[in-house]
Order: sequence, then C-alpha cells, then structure tokens
Amino acid sequence: MTHIVILAGGWGVRLWPMSNRSRPKQLLCLGGDSSLLARTLARVAPLAPPARVLAVTSELLRDLMAEELAPVPDERVVGEPTGRNTAPAIALAAHILVREDPDAMMIVLPADHIIGDDEAFRLTLARGLKAASAENALVTLGVVPTRPETEYGYIEAGEPAGAEGALLVRRFTEKPDRETAERFLDAGGYYWNSGMFVWRAGLFLEAVSNFLPDVAVALDAVTAGVGDEAFKSQIAAYYDSVPSISVDYGIMERSDNVIVVPSDFGWDDVGAWSALGRIWKPDEDGSSVSGDVTLTETADCIVHAEGGVVAAIGVSDLIIVHTPEATLVCPRDRARDVRRIVDELKKQGRW
Amino acid sequence: MTHIVILAGGWGVRLWPMSNRSRPKQLLCLGGDSSLLARTLARVAPLAPPARVLAVTSELLRDLMAEELAPVPDERVVGEPTGRNTAPAIALAAHILVREDPDAMMIVLPADHIIGDDEAFRLTLARGLKAASAENALVTLGVVPTRPETEYGYIEAGEPAGAEGALLVRRFTEKPDRETAERFLDAGGYYWNSGMFVWRAGLFLEAVSNFLPDVAVALDAVTAGVGDEAFKSQIAAYYDSVPSISVDYGIMERSDNVIVVPSDFGWDDVGAWSALGRIWKPDEDGSSVSGDVTLTETADCIVHAEGGVVAAIGVSDLIIVHTPEATLVCPRDRARDVRRIVDELKKQGRW
Repeated sequence: MTHIVILAGGWGVRLWPMSNRSRPKQLLCLGGDSSLLARTLARVAPLAPPARVLAVTSELLRDLMAEELAPVPDERVVGEPTGRNTAPAIALAAHILVREDPDAMMIVLPADHIIGDDEAFRLTLARGLKAASAENALVTLGVVPTRPETEYGYIEAGEPAGAEGALLVRRFTEKPDRETAERFLDAGGYYWNSGMFVWRAGLFLEAVSNFLPDVAVALDAVTAGVGDEAFKSQIAAYYDSVPSISVDYGIMERSDNVIVVPSDFGWDDVGAWSALGRIWKPDEDGSSVSGDVTLTETADCIVHAEGGVVAAIGVSDLIIVHTPEATLVCPRDRARDVRRIVDELKKQGRW
Repeated sequence: MTHIVILAGGWGVRLWPMSNRSRPKQLLCLGGDSSLLARTLARVAPLAPPARVLAVTSELLRDLMAEELAPVPDERVVGEPTGRNTAPAIALAAHILVREDPDAMMIVLPADHIIGDDEAFRLTLARGLKAASAENALVTLGVVPTRPETEYGYIEAGEPAGAEGALLVRRFTEKPDRETAERFLDAGGYYWNSGMFVWRAGLFLEAVSNFLPDVAVALDAVTAGVGDEAFKSQIAAYYDSVPSISVDYGIMERSDNVIVVPSDFGWDDVGAWSALGRIWKPDEDGSSVSGDVTLTETADCIVHAEGGVVAAIGVSDLIIVHTPEATLVCPRDRARDVRRIVDELKKQGRW
C-alpha cells in the first residue's frame, strides 16, 4: 500500500521573522489560504487515507504539527528528540512502515514546499510509484529547472529507465556556481533535487544497511510501534546513536539503482526570502509586497508587514520585514544569510 | 518679570514612527532620561516659577502636554484649535502676558530641542534678557554653527550691539545649499536660527501691529484671560481669522531692531532621524544604535528598536526603525522625506 511520509522537522529559519520559534515555516500560509503543511496533507489525500500518513518532526514542534495534521492519528506524528538531518528520519519512517506493512510503498515529502499544480503533482507521484515498483529503484522527483538557481542541488539524468517518463540518474551535483548553473540549464537533462522521493520502504532499508550500517543497527532496537509505550524511549536511544546525515549524501549519491522522474508542477521550496519575490507578484516597480506596506520611490524590494505597517522611501533591492516583535533588513541577494541572524539570536538565547 | 513661553504645538512627524499621533516628539526621552518637554521646563525653572510659564500647543495634545508640564497651572497650557505656525501662537502668548503684566519680558522656547549645557543656556538667556531690555530690541538666540548644515536657516550678524555679547542682525537667510553653508561656516559671523527668542512682550506686539495687522486686530477681540470661561471661544475666533505664518518670516525678517545673541550650549533641534546619528554615539562601524539591535556587516546606519528587535545584515547608510506598530526604512540622506510618509499615512486616515 502507499504511505505518505511528511518531513516536518525544521523551522525555516531563513524566513525569520515571519517564521519563528513558535511558528515554523510549515505553518505559514505562503502562496495560499492555508498553511504549507495543511496543503501538503490535502494534496496527497487522494493517494492515501490519514491513517497511512506518517509525519516526522521535532519533539518541540510535535503537538503543533499533530494539531495541524488532523485527522492524521496523533501517534503517527513522531517527534525527534534531536535533529539528525533527513537520512535517520526517513530510515525510522521506513522501519515503522515495514513493520506495519512489509510491502509498504512510501512517498517522502517535505512539509513546507509550494506546489502550483496539485493534479500534475499527483500524476507525477503516480508515475514515481510505478517506476519505483517496476524497476525496484529509489525514485527521486527532479524538477525541470526554470532558472540558473544556485541554491539547489542538481540531478544529471542519463538514459531512460524502463518505466514511462523515468530516467536513470547519472550524477548528483552540489549547489553549483552561477556559471555552472547556466551551463546545466543550457545543456538540458539536469533537474533540481526537490527532496521528494518514492520507493518501497524495504528497498530503502536495504540501502540503509549498505551505506549507513550504524543507522540500521540502531533501527533494530526500535521494536515498538508508534502507539506503543516503549516507542518514545526507543527512538530517544535511536536518535542518540545515529549520525547526522542527509538522505542525499548518505543514501542517494551512493546508490546505483536511483531513478529520476522529471517533474513540472510549479514547485518552489520557499527556502529563503528571495523566494517571496517569485511568489508575491511584483508591482510595476519590481517590488513584491505582502501586508500593509507603503513604498515611495522604492524598487525591486521584497517587503512583508504583519501586525503593523512598513514604510520605505528611496531604497532598492532590499528585503524588509516587519512583525510586532522584529524587523529584518537585508539586501535581496543576501537572503541566505538570514540564517546567520537567527544563529546570533540563538546564541543570545532569544530565539 | 520674566515669563517663559513654550511652543509645544507639533508632533515632530519626521521622527515617525518613534513619534506618532499619541506620542509627539516633545514627549520622547531623546538624549536624556525624561522627555524633551520635561527637560525644557526643568531647564528654565531657575528663571521663572511654574505660574509664569505659558505653553501653546495643539488642542489635540493639550491634556497630554498639561500633564507633562505639571506643576504649570493647567489653564496656562493653551490649546490651538488649528495650527497657524509660530507668529500667531507667539502673538497670542504676548497678548496674554501683557494683559497680566504690562512689562512682561518673554523667553520663547520650542518644547522639543536638546540642550547640552543647561547652565550655559541659562547664562545665554540672561544675556538675552539684558540685551532685550537695554536695547529695546527683539533678541534671537543664534547658535554658533559646528557643521555646514543645510536644514537650518542662518542669521548673518553685523556690528556689536550695545549690550555685552550681542550683535546687530544684518540678515536672515533661508536654508542654504551645501556650498553656501560651507561658505557661511568659513566666513564666520553666521549663526543658526534656533527659534529661541527673548523680548519685551509689548515690543513684540508693536511689531505684530506693524507687520501683521490682521493678527493684531484679531488679538484685540481676545479679552478673556487664560482661566476665563470666554477664553476658549475667543481664541477659536482668533485662530479662525489669522493667517498661517512663521515668526521668522512674519516678524523677524521685517524688523529692524533685531539683535542676535551668539549661543554655544550644545544645541540640537532633533529635527529628523539624521539628528540621532549625532545624539546616539556611533559604534566602530559608524552606526548609531538605540534599543535591541543586531547588526552584521552593517555600517553608518541609524537604527532604533523599541518593543522588539531590529536585525540588519549587509546594509549601509540607512535609517531603520522598529516599533511594534511600524517599520521605517530610508536612506540616511533622505531623513527629511519621512514627512512624506506621514503625509501619505494621513491621507489614508491612518496617522
């Protein structure tokens, strides 16, 4: 059966102060009327009932996420006592699913992405499920790139795989520089690594045994199910012993049975403030604005106001954000550095 | 006897959002521990008791000002039903004082300036009182300029007047361009027009009769004293009929018995955000900061945070202000344009 695994572990700190400690990015209503998380769930509802959704999040966010994910059963929202990146989280999910359903197919989705065309998205997942079954492969969704983005990893595709619309993966590449990204775009056959996956849970666990044996050993000690009393202490021990490693680095780049399904459904990971320049339609002066904002002789800014007004005059290419608790100002091309501000606030114990 | 007239009519809109409709600039504690208004009052306490202080403010601010001006008797805080600039306000004050004390000497002070050295300030006023009496002249305090400021009017001084340290006024000049301001500074003998005056109230009323006869006629109808029942309706009629005109343009520039007393007591009119760059000591990167502010790779900014945090990264030469209700961002050299933002907010009915 098909299961949905939602990764809802992060805070999206690069969207501070819109995101903050008590309001992680996946709870923001970016580009829609409900939260990114609620839309992620609604989007896959036709593919699996709530009881076949499993979410992994931070223990600190668990109750908040469980509430937003209703009617997913509360015990199926698993709180990580400590973040260990994506590989241990997905491995734990696969382990749980295999014990419930030995033939489980799993779709792995981040909780905080924007998808423009839900129907196209589901059709792509259906294609991914078929390819994963038919080829017994690890399937990754590769987004057809629309710009020379330097903030994403890329997947270089090779020959067609057997299943319709699926391609063998030649190589994963790290975030490229601008020149390389432009070359990828011109060459074709390169896809953005979306962090969305489809596979048989059992196959993924084989890969874990091969490439992350420490994780596999730690998983063996998790014998309780999500509803069981021992579950919490067992996963505490699990997270204590596993390394922090991403699924891309830990599994995907090391596996030889990886397939990419080219995807084109209006995807955006909303990874930083710069993304809002795409999501909020720019005005005639090139500024993307949300909330109560008064701009004078101002161009090409990204401006967000909530619980108050932003007034700017005579500036350009800035990100300006107001919440009642905080104001952020930084150049548009330094959106990624917002993380550093949050690091500083954390250091001061104020996050 | 010496009377103090405090002009407390404006909001200081160019300091928005630190100043706002319910918190005019004169109530801000800039460069000190109490409000500019409270410090203005305390500063002249050795010169006249509270009963000889008369304040003129907007009717909208009257109660607020009266509270802050305690122990000045409540009825001596006069609310203008509509703003008519400084000449009608000062003329009304002179008219009130002359009816109470025909020989009244009056010191006219804005409510919202910073004075660095109170003792030097009082000595200068004493010198002004002497000169005003001895020469039967209108005395203006001319601040010794310390930079080629283009936001102030200048007074060109001539020969010494009879009284010690007083000079005849050759000419008032409007706000100069940068080059002219530099020439003034190099030449010497030019002083900033501070908007602080000393004169015999009766002499000022003669000048009003000469140069603003409409105002003089309107004053004749104000027969009630500040505590009288008819006072409010009489000044409503007065403000209905007088033109809006500054004391500089309406009286000072037209009079020939004007004397300037050179003044050097650390004066700042805190007219706009740029002033805070002088008042808040710059850090090693040239930024003047107040409140909870985190700056990264940021230089030469003026940043103020209240009720929240400002975080900026990679910017320079900006004014950034956070209050829970608003954020302001503008280049430092456009501080004067903050007025335009407030005009826009007023137009939207949100001031």
